[in-house]
Amino acid sequence: MTKGIEAVETKYFTMAHEFRLESGRTIVPVTLAYETYGLLNDKKDNAVLVMHAFTGDAHAAGSHKGDKGKGWWDFMIGPGRALDTDRYFVICINVLGGCKGSTGPASVNPKTGKPYGLDFPVVTLGDMVNAQVKLIDHLGIDKVYAVLGGSMGGMLALQWAALHPERVKCVIPIAATLKHSPQQIAFNEVGRQAIMADPAWNGGDYYGKAIPEHGLAVARMLGHITYMSNESMEKKFSRRVKGDTGGFQFSPDFEVEGYLQYRGQNFVKRFDANSYLYITKAMDFFDLSGEKLFEKGDLGQTKFLVIAFKSDWLYPSSQSQNMVRQLKMHHVDATYCEINASYGHDSFLIETEGSRQVHLIKHFLANWK
Amino acid sequence: MTKGIEAVETKYFTMAHEFRLESGRTIVPVTLAYETYGLLNDKKDNAVLVMHAFTGDAHAAGSHKGDKGKGWWDFMIGPGRALDTDRYFVICINVLGGCKGSTGPASVNPKTGKPYGLDFPVVTLGDMVNAQVKLIDHLGIDKVYAVLGGSMGGMLALQWAALHPERVKCVIPIAATLKHSPQQIAFNEVGRQAIMADPAWNGGDYYGKAIPEHGLAVARMLGHITYMSNESMEKKFSRRVKGDTGGFQFSPDFEVEGYLQYRGQNFVKRFDANSYLYITKAMDFFDLSGEKLFEKGDLGQTKFLVIAFKSDWLYPSSQSQNMVRQLKMHHVDATYCEINASYGHDSFLIETEGSRQVHLIKHFLANWK
Repeated sequence: MTKGIEAVETKYFTMAHEFRLESGRTIVPVTLAYETYGLLNDKKDNAVLVMHAFTGDAHAAGSHKGDKGKGWWDFMIGPGRALDTDRYFVICINVLGGCKGSTGPASVNPKTGKPYGLDFPVVTLGDMVNAQVKLIDHLGIDKVYAVLGGSMGGMLALQWAALHPERVKCVIPIAATLKHSPQQIAFNEVGRQAIMADPAWNGGDYYGKAIPEHGLAVARMLGHITYMSNESMEKKFSRRVKGDTGGFQFSPDFEVEGYLQYRGQNFVKRFDANSYLYITKAMDFFDLSGEKLFEKGDLGQTKFLVIAFKSDWLYPSSQSQNMVRQLKMHHVDATYCEINASYGHDSFLIETEGSRQVHLIKHFLANWK
Repeated sequence: MTKGIEAVETKYFTMAHEFRLESGRTIVPVTLAYETYGLLNDKKDNAVLVMHAFTGDAHAAGSHKGDKGKGWWDFMIGPGRALDTDRYFVICINVLGGCKGSTGPASVNPKTGKPYGLDFPVVTLGDMVNAQVKLIDHLGIDKVYAVLGGSMGGMLALQWAALHPERVKCVIPIAATLKHSPQQIAFNEVGRQAIMADPAWNGGDYYGKAIPEHGLAVARMLGHITYMSNESMEKKFSRRVKGDTGGFQFSPDFEVEGYLQYRGQNFVKRFDANSYLYITKAMDFFDLSGEKLFEKGDLGQTKFLVIAFKSDWLYPSSQSQNMVRQLKMHHVDATYCEINASYGHDSFLIETEGSRQVHLIKHFLANWK
């Protein structure tokens, strides 16, 4: 593997004016956390926008100073890698409503001097995209070369194409959908109910107090099951029992239970419960089915690469196939690839599972540039 | 459809002696709630044991006096039906550890005069079966003609065959498995964690106080998703929105959300949270893989009908196929049927989905009697 990105740092962009949401409500100030890798060329036509998934952040590649951990898509981004930083100016922005440096429900509401909580307005995937457009404008970029991402990141890539068809050339939705099915909504709703059932959630007003860690951990545990495949869980855990629990009191007896608890408890330290609610609702309301993807423009100049994973049962490949069908019906240039990875929905985040993904994206982007 | 069972009532059997568990611990007294339909013949060889699923009960058919509701498998049981009460003496028993009339964690511990809570000993599916054997003995039945059930009921039917191969002639496991996969354990664990995360759970000591209704409702909501198929949710809910929620505050906006909340809240009224913990743990520890199904006898005289549903992703048909493979490898007479029902795991409970199931069971039983 080639050498990756060197030390990076997260930057912040604060909008000069109030930001108007699709609902008509406004937020001020709006700050977006973002990172960039590589250099914007003189023609400013080599920008590649990487969209993170639900609980992701702007730190897609490289390491922060003093931190050995790599960004979440490091194997994809760097000199000679699929998102080749010798050619492309790669940008990753934390979504509006998030909790990784961008304005969200944990941010201070200037009207009260306290965190918004549930006073934060409802945001949509369209709002997240429109906020990113402000940053792209600020960077002087008229048209991005490509926008891509997995899961919610793929839905955001579609939303970019739908709202700003003239401003994007290549779109790569990975393990995504044009809209959530009732099952996808239902899984999200159970996560939300778990958070809201925690008394510490307190109607969203918990900042500076005990956080709803139990509810949030349960939500994350459930999420984890849906991100893996039955097969990958089988490989990873089988039915191995954790040591001798001697006299069982509903402690985690199986390794898979201990792993889920660990992941749940870890998540609580790094994610805000209200952001969980706002972002999952935004995903559930996202709907570009029917003609909605084509309302602002015919996408005739846009190239799509749609990627699905065979073992992904949360965003099944039938949803990607349906997306391609819609694109083809509208005479849009769309390529479909179903990758035979076994890890489930999270395959796009895993280098070993995603080697075909890397290859496909690299060549797709090189073809059009 | 033929006329069903007339008015029925739940009966209770209390063991004369202390009951010894597989763990070596004992419980006294042990009461089992049960119902019977049809008559035991003179040879006492026409008993059919119906095993209920996880949250089921002894009320499998007919109506209780003053209650128009039918038992949970009424379409299956009655004169001329698959479990023909003109021919068979049908018995359904609430499991040990349950909360529908049989002894469980909500029962009074005679040593303290208070409900057991977590002082109730751990029970296994083997214990549930061995407790049923005491009742079968009490009824004077040496060998049951058939034992059958869906989901945990199917696992209990297998456990009957494993522990008492000489006492059962026909076994029909439906939508079941020889052991839970890590994914099945993981879903159960999230349900348990949701319950235990509710402060009202209070270490299992909540009887006579506020019950852990929020946690239990979340667990049930999750369960419901796994009992349905993606397709059946699509048919039932699509993405229809519930009225106008005007200004959304994480209220249930989609019909599927309202439905899940309703089911969750209803469940809380009829099921005990500690029973949820004990029974799911018993299922997770159940393991008849490898040689374990055959350790007490070769099952050479036993006939198996193994039924799976194509749309069941929680207990996928591969698990039933594996069961049949094990049986065949041990030269056991086993028939396998995969039914093309669309409802998912719960198909066995639904008359319209289960019409092929009814037909198969009826003829399988008639063939051997």
